[in-house]
Amino acid sequence: LDYQHVQVPFEITLWIMLASLAKIGFHLYNKLPSVVPESCLLIFVGLIMGGIIYGLNDKSPPVMDSDIFFLYLLPPIVLDAGYFMPSRPFFENIGTILLYAVVGTIWNVFGIGFSLYGICQVRAFHLQDISLLHNLLFGSLIAAVDPVAVLAVFEEIHVNEKLHILVFGESLLNDAVTVVLYKLFRSFCEMPAIKTVDVFAGVGKFFVVGIGGVLVGLTFGMTAAFTTRFTKDIRVIEPLFVFLYSYLSYLTAEMFHLSGIVAIIACAMGMKRYVEANISLKSHTTVKYFMKMWSSVSDTLIFIFLGVSTIGENHEWNWPYICFTVIFCLIWRALGVLVLTFFVNRFHVNSVTSKDQFIIAYGGLRGAICFSLVFLLPDFRRKKLFIAATTVVILFTVFVQGMTIRPLVDLLHVKRKRESAPTVGEQIHIRFLDHLLAGIEDISGHWGQYYWKDKLEYFNSKYLQKILLREYDQPKSSIVLLYEKLERKHAIELAEAGQLGHAASHPSLLSGFLCSNSDRTVITDKKSEDTLNPDVLESIQEILARNLYRIRRTGPAYSRHTLPGEEPTEQAEEILIVQRRSL
Amino acid sequence: LDYQHVQVPFEITLWIMLASLAKIGFHLYNKLPSVVPESCLLIFVGLIMGGIIYGLNDKSPPVMDSDIFFLYLLPPIVLDAGYFMPSRPFFENIGTILLYAVVGTIWNVFGIGFSLYGICQVRAFHLQDISLLHNLLFGSLIAAVDPVAVLAVFEEIHVNEKLHILVFGESLLNDAVTVVLYKLFRSFCEMPAIKTVDVFAGVGKFFVVGIGGVLVGLTFGMTAAFTTRFTKDIRVIEPLFVFLYSYLSYLTAEMFHLSGIVAIIACAMGMKRYVEANISLKSHTTVKYFMKMWSSVSDTLIFIFLGVSTIGENHEWNWPYICFTVIFCLIWRALGVLVLTFFVNRFHVNSVTSKDQFIIAYGGLRGAICFSLVFLLPDFRRKKLFIAATTVVILFTVFVQGMTIRPLVDLLHVKRKRESAPTVGEQIHIRFLDHLLAGIEDISGHWGQYYWKDKLEYFNSKYLQKILLREYDQPKSSIVLLYEKLERKHAIELAEAGQLGHAASHPSLLSGFLCSNSDRTVITDKKSEDTLNPDVLESIQEILARNLYRIRRTGPAYSRHTLPGEEPTEQAEEILIVQRRSL
Repeated sequence: LDYQHVQVPFEITLWIMLASLAKIGFHLYNKLPSVVPESCLLIFVGLIMGGIIYGLNDKSPPVMDSDIFFLYLLPPIVLDAGYFMPSRPFFENIGTILLYAVVGTIWNVFGIGFSLYGICQVRAFHLQDISLLHNLLFGSLIAAVDPVAVLAVFEEIHVNEKLHILVFGESLLNDAVTVVLYKLFRSFCEMPAIKTVDVFAGVGKFFVVGIGGVLVGLTFGMTAAFTTRFTKDIRVIEPLFVFLYSYLSYLTAEMFHLSGIVAIIACAMGMKRYVEANISLKSHTTVKYFMKMWSSVSDTLIFIFLGVSTIGENHEWNWPYICFTVIFCLIWRALGVLVLTFFVNRFHVNSVTSKDQFIIAYGGLRGAICFSLVFLLPDFRRKKLFIAATTVVILFTVFVQGMTIRPLVDLLHVKRKRESAPTVGEQIHIRFLDHLLAGIEDISGHWGQYYWKDKLEYFNSKYLQKILLREYDQPKSSIVLLYEKLERKHAIELAEAGQLGHAASHPSLLSGFLCSNSDRTVITDKKSEDTLNPDVLESIQEILARNLYRIRRTGPAYSRHTLPGEEPTEQAEEILIVQRRSL
Repeated sequence: LDYQHVQVPFEITLWIMLASLAKIGFHLYNKLPSVVPESCLLIFVGLIMGGIIYGLNDKSPPVMDSDIFFLYLLPPIVLDAGYFMPSRPFFENIGTILLYAVVGTIWNVFGIGFSLYGICQVRAFHLQDISLLHNLLFGSLIAAVDPVAVLAVFEEIHVNEKLHILVFGESLLNDAVTVVLYKLFRSFCEMPAIKTVDVFAGVGKFFVVGIGGVLVGLTFGMTAAFTTRFTKDIRVIEPLFVFLYSYLSYLTAEMFHLSGIVAIIACAMGMKRYVEANISLKSHTTVKYFMKMWSSVSDTLIFIFLGVSTIGENHEWNWPYICFTVIFCLIWRALGVLVLTFFVNRFHVNSVTSKDQFIIAYGGLRGAICFSLVFLLPDFRRKKLFIAATTVVILFTVFVQGMTIRPLVDLLHVKRKRESAPTVGEQIHIRFLDHLLAGIEDISGHWGQYYWKDKLEYFNSKYLQKILLREYDQPKSSIVLLYEKLERKHAIELAEAGQLGHAASHPSLLSGFLCSNSDRTVITDKKSEDTLNPDVLESIQEILARNLYRIRRTGPAYSRHTLPGEEPTEQAEEILIVQRRSL
């Protein structure tokens, strides 16, 4: 037996296997996941495993290595989140999201830091040795909302799109703030004296970290799109480039101390439309499938490890500090959301309701990022207390808030995600309003989001598409692409139905219309045959394509476990009706 | 700049990126790969990179780590080879393949070992310090044909299926022999005295290593099939199980010193049919795509590393030893193939022609496995000489033999792979003969391959399918599945054609027949409408399904870069014709 030799890959494979089997297990018993979120169940599995390891070895089980978390487990989740990000709601609410992510996080950090420092001054608690700086450092790691935890819970409760993107977008973009503040306070802790220059440098650094991340991401995203122009003869390695370039953008950003999360999201959102146009349909399926698969496994592993790492002897228990941490986290977040939303609502027509505010505040879950950061702290006397407090905050938010948020959403009648996709009519109106608003903004000289969107679209079709797309000379409008996709899907369904012996009653879309009438009268048959001659069809398509240029179905909200567009029946029927009317 | 932190994943990603870009580069210039095999080009890229690293650092570039090779680079290639192995020709020629792999490899090891020992006795060559045991050890690592090198060359020359499977199967299955002999001689080298018991133990070990590998592989394969029964609600992680279980089978086999290659092939071949039936169509596409992608990248990396590792100062040059190694490798392989084929042809009706024998002997390429094994040798005085000799043999076989084998195949008019897929008539005959021969074998009491195949099929449908398949109560016969697949494919094509404005002229299969006639006479239309009522259709399908039970399209030969079944046009037309006749 030579275990040493294969240990590393063997143990990795076994952990992944355990995670996958746990997932299958939960889904076999349908009742459980409908009450308890999967993240809670996974932490619970982790706690049991940690208990077993602790019981057998009589020493603390290994904690999750921060390097493994940041280098291998986090990127797939963020890549998946960025790639499937619904871009319209994201850009429509980008101002609000940035406000929550930047100002809100800073507010929380200082709020929690200062008030914990206040608690430390109470003699009875025996906490006087924790300095203000250490409290602020702790605040910087505990304040940020965690994207992994938020995703895991919010994908199950189906709130409306705007609310979802506000919480989710904040959790992703606050990474830049967290990185800067955490590193700043950590370096301050090790400095003998802090100069005013350092503080200003810190403020400047925030912009560098955020905007630098975006630039690194966009550079790699564009390179990825450019590379896929040349993969026509070697389709099998196409999916690889999507993963390689995204991962490189993350690593490069981390290398230069920029925000890796921001970089990988910029990369994924930047390359998506070009890559999808260049690669083959099968490659695209593979990319989507593998992204979902990897992020799903990563997420499972993170929660299991979180559970395992909780067990052990690296905690120092101090009731007041830990309780007040939980309380302050809740209070400062609630206050922050209230104050910021007040300002947001003054400038937006479509305001954030008080119910939405409550869910935003209550959905501020903490997760594995805090946990990894607290282990990365330099060793000092009270590190174990910080670890204990972080663990409690994470478990409290994931278990208590995570499990009660679904009943609360039901109780408050929070506006849900609309189940049906927008109709073609709605889409035409949305598109029309976009053009109208861009025109109004242009005339009034106000450079708002519609103005910039229009400019970007122009720049894209004028320059970017020519460089990045393989067949830039034939830009198919999105409605034609959608039509092709639906036609293909419908054809598959019909073929499958036909196989079951109903072929004669449901033939293919166009010919179906002819044949189903064929037994009524010959004249109808003849007539519709004439209507459908290729020239007429082509002109119909051209009119559709010209007038409905760029109408795009708003993508369904993000979900970890399903690929978008898996319920095509209504869509297919819709196009069938439209088609029949046009004949 | 914090390079240290991200070094490991960053460098791995960069190497994979380099490999992928090199592949794209070759395919952009179509002329080059048609003359020089890709493996040669990749080694060349590696040599250049090694030269650059050597020039810049003034020290030898890092050699390929044997652990990385065996644990991470080899498994994807072997998994791909096993999963896409054409099982019919493989099992038809299993006897011949085993003979070449086992007896042939032993013949080569001892032939090369003893004759090199003879060369060492010549005083003028200054090689007298190399013992017989060291020569045999060297023989054991240099004798085995390398699957990676063979695949890379043979997938480009398109020889007939039997010849392909003989060389390819041998290169895969000789792993068991290589493992045993290499480890045996290595332990003998370290023993003070060799007892007769050890030699017999070695012989026994061979069976343990080979059969143990098969058992480990089958166990994991069946577990994988069983697991995919329960993934219906969580489709995205289905592909993962295929990879996880295969990899576990490889690692487990390696852990117990069994043959990992044999295990992973048994696992892949065992699970394939069950897994494919259980998982969704999209998961299946992802599995196939990712397998091709991973094996393609691994293979590229191996050849590049081979080039990089060649440059450096770890070679000891000795003209006679190196030249004679190359010559003996060629001679003993040629002799071995001649002698073994003589025996094979006495027992087989379908004999191996002399041209085939020449290609089998000439196609005995060496590759990265030898290279990794030679670096794993314990340190002794002449290790650098062995490294030099191995490098020369690999480069000679890959460059000289690899580049000349294609012109030779043309020159000798070696029978090529048939371009067209077998017709339905041929398939029915093949199936009929299988049943007939199974019956004859049963009556005559001869337990040949057809007898066993029949028994296995019975066992499979009686027990295995019930345990391993999700919907075992509705076993669809393979012709119905094929029909469904073709119908689906044809429907997609028609949908795409319809989009281009030709919908009226190519409607779907069944209704198409009706509609295309509709403008001729109403009577035909009416009549065929009647013919196609669901009952009749169903009874036709049932008759087809019952009578043509288990007719299976023989899979196309293995290729690294394409997925099988990508040219469906003839197939679709064929089924269309059959269908029309049946109406």
